[in-house]
Amino acid sequence: MTHWEDFYNTHLPPADFEDNRSLLKEFCERHNKLQNRIVLVTSGGTTVPLEHNTVRFVDNFSAGTRGSASAEYFLDHDYAVIFMHRHKSLEPFTRHFTGQQFFDMLDIADTADSQNSTIAIKPDSVDVFAPVLAKYKIARETQMILYVNFTSVVDYMWLLRAACECLAAFEERAVLYLAAAVSDFYIPEDMMPTHKMQSGDGAPTISLQLVPKMLAPLASLWVPHAFVVSFKLETDENLLIVKARDSLNKYKHKLVIANVLQTRKHRVVFVTPTDSYELHLSRDKALQGLEIEEPIVADVVQKHSDFIISAEQRQ
Amino acid sequence: MTHWEDFYNTHLPPADFEDNRSLLKEFCERHNKLQNRIVLVTSGGTTVPLEHNTVRFVDNFSAGTRGSASAEYFLDHDYAVIFMHRHKSLEPFTRHFTGQQFFDMLDIADTADSQNSTIAIKPDSVDVFAPVLAKYKIARETQMILYVNFTSVVDYMWLLRAACECLAAFEERAVLYLAAAVSDFYIPEDMMPTHKMQSGDGAPTISLQLVPKMLAPLASLWVPHAFVVSFKLETDENLLIVKARDSLNKYKHKLVIANVLQTRKHRVVFVTPTDSYELHLSRDKALQGLEIEEPIVADVVQKHSDFIISAEQRQ
Repeated sequence: MTHWEDFYNTHLPPADFEDNRSLLKEFCERHNKLQNRIVLVTSGGTTVPLEHNTVRFVDNFSAGTRGSASAEYFLDHDYAVIFMHRHKSLEPFTRHFTGQQFFDMLDIADTADSQNSTIAIKPDSVDVFAPVLAKYKIARETQMILYVNFTSVVDYMWLLRAACECLAAFEERAVLYLAAAVSDFYIPEDMMPTHKMQSGDGAPTISLQLVPKMLAPLASLWVPHAFVVSFKLETDENLLIVKARDSLNKYKHKLVIANVLQTRKHRVVFVTPTDSYELHLSRDKALQGLEIEEPIVADVVQKHSDFIISAEQRQ
Repeated sequence: MTHWEDFYNTHLPPADFEDNRSLLKEFCERHNKLQNRIVLVTSGGTTVPLEHNTVRFVDNFSAGTRGSASAEYFLDHDYAVIFMHRHKSLEPFTRHFTGQQFFDMLDIADTADSQNSTIAIKPDSVDVFAPVLAKYKIARETQMILYVNFTSVVDYMWLLRAACECLAAFEERAVLYLAAAVSDFYIPEDMMPTHKMQSGDGAPTISLQLVPKMLAPLASLWVPHAFVVSFKLETDENLLIVKARDSLNKYKHKLVIANVLQTRKHRVVFVTPTDSYELHLSRDKALQGLEIEEPIVADVVQKHSDFIISAEQRQ
């Protein structure tokens, strides 16, 4: 496996990196002055390009549901939120409506002078839409949320480290909520063809290399005082707890939220260094439109509060 | 390479296949009775799952811009449109606005009795939004567009053949406008692992096989009388015309629209069995907000009209 420092030495930052770094710096400095709590929510999958002029890439399955929903609930708990997401994946608030759902909610009416038309949300849709829109507007106006996005696993790695550099100053007040589905594998720069692979050349074989585990420098060096939460997605139930426990032992962070692909919307397992327990969304609550991210975030926030108090007591 | 019939024999249709087939059948029968012209627009990329319980997949780069824009212009030319697109890729009309753009166009106002609120598009956004919304509503109300979607290359193949079975009855009145970026490679069912590949097993090697070229049975067997247009995307300019010409010689269809990844938004090359010429969007026109898909579709429609006339003269 490539060492994490070598990964940054051999892969250039994305073109918009300096812009994003400035945004992160400004956002963090403002909220640190206000002594706010802050959370970095990562969300969506990363790509691994197979060619320099990218036509094909390996992708990880993730619509961004977990991350975008969780970001909303962290805002409810008065956290400043850095929403670091895969370009075009689901975002807080807008995730509730697709493009066609928006269009179908709207009515065009010609005004009396027939010079201008007005477009309004149909009355029967206002009840559903108004609270979501109101929360979105408040989050924007109070500047409690910053959106930054990535596409490839290299973009992700650069943004993650830049965010950590800004978050370090928050010490215990920062939560890292690493819900993005980051590729374990990649193709190193020097092994990538320049042009689109040609089918005339026969069926290709793609050789992947392991991506360094950034959780190691993140938890021990970049934000050593923060409350770090990682996610584990498996398709095999039997591997879940074992792998979560391995991860905690290795990286010494605070919490792994483990879930199985097929049941992830109504069941997760919280694994801490000392404990593990299930968090479940009942069928009734799901039918009422409740989401499992609401109790997940409530639990994380409670653990984070306890963590801050015990850190203060140590001082 | 797998033979195309073997591909269907060894890969099951997707779960929603019969529903989509019914929709296609109803849509085509209605428009065929009306003697309408019809176009199948395919759009967006296909995925190749790497695992049965899909966490990872190989994807083709395509936001669906070409296909979704072209579908709008075919509607302007009074074609019935089957918009067969990658799930979550860009769609006609809604493509002009992202989720946040929608939210930012909206104002909440409390009405006099303060019991109900109304939400309306801000006056300065109405001018841009109204014409798009109006066209969307007309296309829906007149049932001139049918949306069907796919994710994997297997889904795509099943839908493509089902659409062709319904389109055959239109004979020369059907256009196939195959703008989707379909994977050339896939992993056969029996070579796919059931569970998520584990990074502990070391870096994996992915062995891909060639997907059969469906353009062969499509042009010669499924819709032998239709006007078939394929697309060729390359990153290497030098390969463009040669490969387009090869394709026409092999599949005997009517037109290849060839483009280079980096310049595809303002330059394409039309390659017919007898001719090739460039279609170019000037910088001025691009700055006015014009899209190259407008002249592309106008040219295809003109060629299609000529094709229908010459077919009638032969009879």
